[in-house]
Amino acid sequence: MKIRLFNARILSMVEGQDIFEGDIWVVDGKIQYIGESKDSSQIVWDKEIDCEKNLLMPGFKNAHTHSGMTAFRSLADDLNLQDWLTTMIFPREAVMTGEDIYWLTKLAILEYLTSGVTLIADMYLTPETILDACSQMGMRCEIVSGLNKFGPTLQVLEDRYNNLNGKDELVGFKMGVHAEYTCDKELLEEVSKLIHKYQAPLYVHMSETKTEHEECIERYGMTPMAFFDSLGLWDFGGSIYHGVWITDDDMEIMKKRGISIISNPGSNSKLASGIAPISKYLEKEIPVGLGTDGPSSNNCLDMFREMFLVTALAKLREMDPKAVDAMEVLKMACVNGATSLGHEDCSDLSMGKYADIIMIDLKQPNMQPILNIAKNIVYSGSKTNIKMTMINGKVLYYNGSFEGVDVEEIYDKCAQITERLKDI
Amino acid sequence: MKIRLFNARILSMVEGQDIFEGDIWVVDGKIQYIGESKDSSQIVWDKEIDCEKNLLMPGFKNAHTHSGMTAFRSLADDLNLQDWLTTMIFPREAVMTGEDIYWLTKLAILEYLTSGVTLIADMYLTPETILDACSQMGMRCEIVSGLNKFGPTLQVLEDRYNNLNGKDELVGFKMGVHAEYTCDKELLEEVSKLIHKYQAPLYVHMSETKTEHEECIERYGMTPMAFFDSLGLWDFGGSIYHGVWITDDDMEIMKKRGISIISNPGSNSKLASGIAPISKYLEKEIPVGLGTDGPSSNNCLDMFREMFLVTALAKLREMDPKAVDAMEVLKMACVNGATSLGHEDCSDLSMGKYADIIMIDLKQPNMQPILNIAKNIVYSGSKTNIKMTMINGKVLYYNGSFEGVDVEEIYDKCAQITERLKDI
Repeated sequence: MKIRLFNARILSMVEGQDIFEGDIWVVDGKIQYIGESKDSSQIVWDKEIDCEKNLLMPGFKNAHTHSGMTAFRSLADDLNLQDWLTTMIFPREAVMTGEDIYWLTKLAILEYLTSGVTLIADMYLTPETILDACSQMGMRCEIVSGLNKFGPTLQVLEDRYNNLNGKDELVGFKMGVHAEYTCDKELLEEVSKLIHKYQAPLYVHMSETKTEHEECIERYGMTPMAFFDSLGLWDFGGSIYHGVWITDDDMEIMKKRGISIISNPGSNSKLASGIAPISKYLEKEIPVGLGTDGPSSNNCLDMFREMFLVTALAKLREMDPKAVDAMEVLKMACVNGATSLGHEDCSDLSMGKYADIIMIDLKQPNMQPILNIAKNIVYSGSKTNIKMTMINGKVLYYNGSFEGVDVEEIYDKCAQITERLKDI
Repeated sequence: MKIRLFNARILSMVEGQDIFEGDIWVVDGKIQYIGESKDSSQIVWDKEIDCEKNLLMPGFKNAHTHSGMTAFRSLADDLNLQDWLTTMIFPREAVMTGEDIYWLTKLAILEYLTSGVTLIADMYLTPETILDACSQMGMRCEIVSGLNKFGPTLQVLEDRYNNLNGKDELVGFKMGVHAEYTCDKELLEEVSKLIHKYQAPLYVHMSETKTEHEECIERYGMTPMAFFDSLGLWDFGGSIYHGVWITDDDMEIMKKRGISIISNPGSNSKLASGIAPISKYLEKEIPVGLGTDGPSSNNCLDMFREMFLVTALAKLREMDPKAVDAMEVLKMACVNGATSLGHEDCSDLSMGKYADIIMIDLKQPNMQPILNIAKNIVYSGSKTNIKMTMINGKVLYYNGSFEGVDVEEIYDKCAQITERLKDI
C-alpha cells in the first residue's frame, strides 16, 4: 500500500525541526519519505491525498486509558475516586464479559480516531478481547495489566505477557498493577520477580489522591513511589499514572529509575483529586505524557481537552501564565506518550517510523489566523480539527467518516450492554 | 419562513421539564409549536428537517467576549493580564479600524456557530461595525460598551445607546465600562448619571485578578463591587465579568442589586488569574452565566470547554467532585447568559420565544451510550456535536457548513489584518 500525502504543512516533532511545507510518502505502513515536495511520477500510488496546506503531524498518544469503561459514561459522576470505584464500578465490572469489553473498546476507538489518537495504553479487564478490538479496528495499542489482589493470577499475567506480545503487529502487552492500595505486599513481591525475569518496565496508578498517598505512608512508612522502589519494581523503568500527590524525594527516585509520569488532568479535576505539579516534573526533566483516563471518570476521550488542561491547570497551580508552554504540551501528547511505552517507532514523523499521522484542519475558524500553529492547536484546538487519522499507514478516519466500520452496530451492541449493566 | 424540526429529542431548559420526544415548528423566527409530534400536513413548510432522534436544545449564550480580538489569537500568550494588556494588546488596538473589527468579528461568528452559540455579549471597540457584522451573519448580539478613560466620550456612549438600540432586530447595545482600574472616579460618576437617566443595567470586568481587587481597596478603601455600589452604578442591575476575587460582602451587594456573574474559566486559567468561587455564588443564589472571553486570552470560542471547566475547576477548588452539577452548568450556558442581558425571549425553548435552537449530534461516539444526555454534553461534549445552529429561525450552520457565507473571504481579510498588526 503506497500513499502520497502532498501539499501539506508538516510538524514532524523531531527536536529542533520547524514546521515546513512538503510531502510524506507512506509505503507499507511506514514513512518512506518526508521532506520538500519532489517528483514522484515514477511511483504508482494506491492513494494520493491533497492536504491543501493543512497540517500533518504525529498522532496523539493516549498513554493512560480504560477503554472498556465507555459502558459507564455518565452513569456514575460526581463521586470521589474511592466511592466511585467501590460502589459504582467494581460491582459492574464483576459481571462484564470479554465480549462486552470487545464492543465497548471498539466504541472508545471510534472516539480516539475523532481525536487524532494513534496509540493507546489500555488497562482493562480482558486483554484478549481488547487485542481483537484493536486489531480489527487498526488501533495501535499497548495493553497494560491491571493486576490486583482480586485477580487475575500471576500465572495469567505471565502467560499474557508471553502470548499476547507478538500476536498482532499493532498490539503489545505490558506488565502493570492496578495500584498500591489494591495489591498487598506479597503480591507486589511476586510481581517484582516477574519484572526481573523479563526485565520489564512497570505501569501503575500512583499518588492519584491524597488519601491513597497518605494511607500508603501509614501502612508502610513510605510513599507509594518509595515503597515500590524498595521492592525493586522500578528496576526496569516504567510509568506512573496521575502522580498528583508526589514528593520531591519521589521525583528523585523517578529521575534515578527513568520513570515517566502520565498526567490525566481531565480525570483529576472531575474527581477532584488535585492538580499535578507538572512544572516541577518538567524542571526535574522527568518525562510527562498525557492520558484521558477512562470515559467514566473524565468523561470524554479527547486529547485536545487534556492538552489545554495540562497547561491551564499548571498555570493556575503556579499562578504563572508562562507555566508549561504549547510546544512542551505537544511533545507530551505526541512524543513522550510513545517513548513511555518504548514506542520510539511512532514518536515523531521521520523516515522509517510508523506512519501514525494526523491531519489538522487549519481551515476551521478556531485555527485562524495562522500566527502560531502549535499554540493554535494547544490553546484553541478541538476534535473538529481532526481531518484525518492514519495508523500504520491506513487511513481510518477522514472528513468525519470512519473507513470500513459499521458504526451503528457498535452503538447498538454497546447500548445493549449498558442497558444490562446500568441497574446492577 | 416556516421550518418544521421533527423526530427530535428535546431539552427545552424550561424549569422542571424533562427531555421528551417531539417536534418544533418555527414560524417567522419564533417557536410556534413545541411538543409531541402532531399532524402538520395542512401547513406548507419551507423546510422540514428530520432530526433523527438527535437533541434540540436552546443555543448557548456566550455572555462575555471580545470578538474582534481574533486578530491576536496565539500572538500574545503566556503573559499575565496586566502585561498582556499593556504591552501586547493596547498598542495594536490603537491602530485597528472599524473595518478590521468588522472582518475579525465575522471570523469569531463563524467559530460561535460551530460551538452552538446563538447570543453573544460583545465588548469591543467599534460597535457600529460589530452591528454590521452580526446583522449580516445573522448573529444575535448585545454589544456592550467598554468605555474607559482613554475613550470614547460619554456623549458617544449615549449616542450609541440611543442610535444602535432598535437599529437591527438582532442587535442591542448595553451600558458598560471596561473596568475600575481603567476608569477614574469622575468618569464613573458621569456614567452613573447616564445609568440613572436611562435606568440601564451596567456590565463591567470586575475582580478578575488579585492585583486589581487589592489595588482598588488601596485606592478607595473599598472593593471594586462596593466602590461601584457607592456610586449608584448597580441601581439598575447588571453583570460582572470574571468575579474571581470576590468577598462575602461583595456577594451580598450582588444579591441585593440583582447582579449576575459571568464566569470565564478558560481565560481565568490561561492567564493564571485564579478560580472563581462558583459553588458559593450558587449557594447564595447569584445567577452565573458563562463567557469565553476574547480569543486572545482563551484562545478559543468554545462553550463546551467553558462548560467543562466551570464545573471541573469548581470541583478542584472545593476538593469536592459533587460541586456544580451538569444541569446547573447547562442552565448557566443556555438560560442565565440570556437573562443576564434581559433576553428572556431566547432563554429556553417554549412557545413564542425566538427560535435560537441547536441540534446536538448524539450519534458521535463521545455521546454514546445515551445514559444521561445532560452529563454527556457537559462532561463529554465537543464542537463536533453541533450538528445545527439556528438563530432567529434561520439555519446558519448545518453538518459542518456555513449557509450562504464566503468563509475564504473572511479568512483572507483577517489574514491581511493580522499581518498588518502583528509586528507593531
